[in-house]
Amino acid sequence: MSVDEALRQLLALARATPFTAVEPVALRQADGRVLAEDLLATIDLPPWANSAMDGYALRLDDLPGQPLPVSQAVFAGQAPGPLQARTCARVFTGAPVPDGTDCVQLQENCVLDAQGRVSSLTPLRRGDNVRPQGNEIRADAPLLAAGTVLNPISLGVLASQGISQVPVLRRPRVALLSSGDELAGEGAVLGPGQIFDSNRVVLATLLERLGCDVIDLGCVPDDPLRLRTALVEAEGAELIISSAGVSVGDADCIGALLREGGEVKLWKLAIKPGKPFTFGHVGAVPLLGLPGNPGSALVTFLLTARPYLLARMGVVQVEPVRVPVVAGFAWPKAGKRQEYLRVRLDGGRARLLENQSSATLLSAVQGDGLLEVPAGETFEAGDVLDFIAFAGVGVY
Amino acid sequence: MSVDEALRQLLALARATPFTAVEPVALRQADGRVLAEDLLATIDLPPWANSAMDGYALRLDDLPGQPLPVSQAVFAGQAPGPLQARTCARVFTGAPVPDGTDCVQLQENCVLDAQGRVSSLTPLRRGDNVRPQGNEIRADAPLLAAGTVLNPISLGVLASQGISQVPVLRRPRVALLSSGDELAGEGAVLGPGQIFDSNRVVLATLLERLGCDVIDLGCVPDDPLRLRTALVEAEGAELIISSAGVSVGDADCIGALLREGGEVKLWKLAIKPGKPFTFGHVGAVPLLGLPGNPGSALVTFLLTARPYLLARMGVVQVEPVRVPVVAGFAWPKAGKRQEYLRVRLDGGRARLLENQSSATLLSAVQGDGLLEVPAGETFEAGDVLDFIAFAGVGVY
Repeated sequence: MSVDEALRQLLALARATPFTAVEPVALRQADGRVLAEDLLATIDLPPWANSAMDGYALRLDDLPGQPLPVSQAVFAGQAPGPLQARTCARVFTGAPVPDGTDCVQLQENCVLDAQGRVSSLTPLRRGDNVRPQGNEIRADAPLLAAGTVLNPISLGVLASQGISQVPVLRRPRVALLSSGDELAGEGAVLGPGQIFDSNRVVLATLLERLGCDVIDLGCVPDDPLRLRTALVEAEGAELIISSAGVSVGDADCIGALLREGGEVKLWKLAIKPGKPFTFGHVGAVPLLGLPGNPGSALVTFLLTARPYLLARMGVVQVEPVRVPVVAGFAWPKAGKRQEYLRVRLDGGRARLLENQSSATLLSAVQGDGLLEVPAGETFEAGDVLDFIAFAGVGVY
Repeated sequence: MSVDEALRQLLALARATPFTAVEPVALRQADGRVLAEDLLATIDLPPWANSAMDGYALRLDDLPGQPLPVSQAVFAGQAPGPLQARTCARVFTGAPVPDGTDCVQLQENCVLDAQGRVSSLTPLRRGDNVRPQGNEIRADAPLLAAGTVLNPISLGVLASQGISQVPVLRRPRVALLSSGDELAGEGAVLGPGQIFDSNRVVLATLLERLGCDVIDLGCVPDDPLRLRTALVEAEGAELIISSAGVSVGDADCIGALLREGGEVKLWKLAIKPGKPFTFGHVGAVPLLGLPGNPGSALVTFLLTARPYLLARMGVVQVEPVRVPVVAGFAWPKAGKRQEYLRVRLDGGRARLLENQSSATLLSAVQGDGLLEVPAGETFEAGDVLDFIAFAGVGVY
């Protein structure tokens, strides 16, 4: 099954079961959370007309004739009185301009006479050097849409509106397990034929960066009873993510459990690194089964599980952003599966990292992202391909 | 002063005063932290030679002549015995191969006779379909260097080595204040001539994403006494970051305090949005003074304060990664300052966002990053410029 088709089905499943629980959170705790409601602007920004420059605020009708005396000086943070007839006001950048102001003349375009009266040296038009009230945004205009993942900049926009608390999606509870007789957990001593599990820490931190609460079920051997015992702790989870080891029984043990929960999708994804992918239910809780090799688990998570989760969270942009990047190497042999090459950007060109084995994370750790090679395609050095930056999918 | 020259001086100051306090942290709590020591591999990966495919492990010398009986079957997670003379072993992907194995023949290239004995149909060479022990990395080889910012992938690499705790830099304590009579803090009612402060939430979340502990000193009016009172809370801080409002007294009040601490650098940076930038000391604590306009504070932080902090943290890659991007618009009028345009990528081309005012964050919130326009330069639609992705500098 193509990655696109699998994603289409997964996103349909996700959109049919959106997370809905909402909680209010203070702005300073809201970084990375998903906005649960459309927010409107509460005030005009700027809240009052203000001067874009240091200079003199005046009325156009007062300009012909005598120089204008300065009737007040307005600094930022002050509230001016109305502009008196046939006078001007000294204003500084960001300061409110007095009511009745038509425009601001820059101080360098003025001369002052002996009495400190101001003459303008250059022609002016209404509105010059004045930022009108509500110029950036009007009260009640759309500010941020539900589904926005809050970040430092959007939090700043909310703060500038005096909004100090926002309704966000409650953190989804995601249970996580690694399955396979060959896996040793953190702190264990490596037995014969064993390897240390790395998938849980990779997936747990990726999930936390997506705003999830992670329930770590640990490493579970290929034993139906041990699997059931582990899943008792998943009580309250809204999603289970497993990565199966490479031993023969791994996928079967989870598959058998899922078959009790109804229909099980066992896909052979046309993705490299990757391939086996499982979707089913444990009781009422959806389970995504990722492949066990660390490179495969990482790529499959980023390409399928992450969009699925974001879609359930109501986020609009769920798929990784692709940018065009020039390949610094040739790919003469077409593959049968869509391939995600771990690459580093050198001067903007993608350089292939040495070890592309699905079993290793070592090349990914030196990489800037994934170069997407469609199934059946080859390319020359200098060709442009789609690139998925790790930084754009929560790895930086 | 050019941005490059300011950065050169700031980085020299940073490298002369590196943060040095180190603490051990469990892997699951180490996301985003900076590794404080070079780490070596503790074990070979893979820890034992293993089969790359499902098939039969055998000795090349045993191939000519009679079919080989299967003397053992090895699944992943099991420890095989040595390969008995003139036999082969059934092996599965990822399973250890028995001592004495020369290569693995794929199951699809074998035939089994009535007694279950195996004949190989295609020629084989030593090492075929075997991943040797230590193929990815050898024990004692360099694993991750001091200064690495740990992320989900590098944490996975550490987990695969059985490393469950790492020495990381203690979180730098950074005090943060916004200065200006016109600023109202969160939860305040907006007075005449006032605006809500947005810089602190933007800078605080950016600092936390860099692994800092933030001491929020709040909004401080242009009053030397109030400023001193606020800074008492900065006790223990290793850096103070202020953003000054746009009112005339803002920078002076901080400047006066800094002059007591010795030399003060007051730079007019050739950067847009931006310009005023202050560096000095309060007692022994360095203070970075950013401009007050939200767009200016954001860009100046990303281009100067962030690299300065990362350099003090011993991170190697401190400057934003630039990637070449095609401009989807023309820029006919050269500016005097290096300009950072807030742009959105549409199909890989940079589209200029509507409001480039230094006073607003609203365009940045819709943006994917900054297009860097050197001072004095113009460009045409279709020209290639350097682009700094927000996602690459901790905003995503």
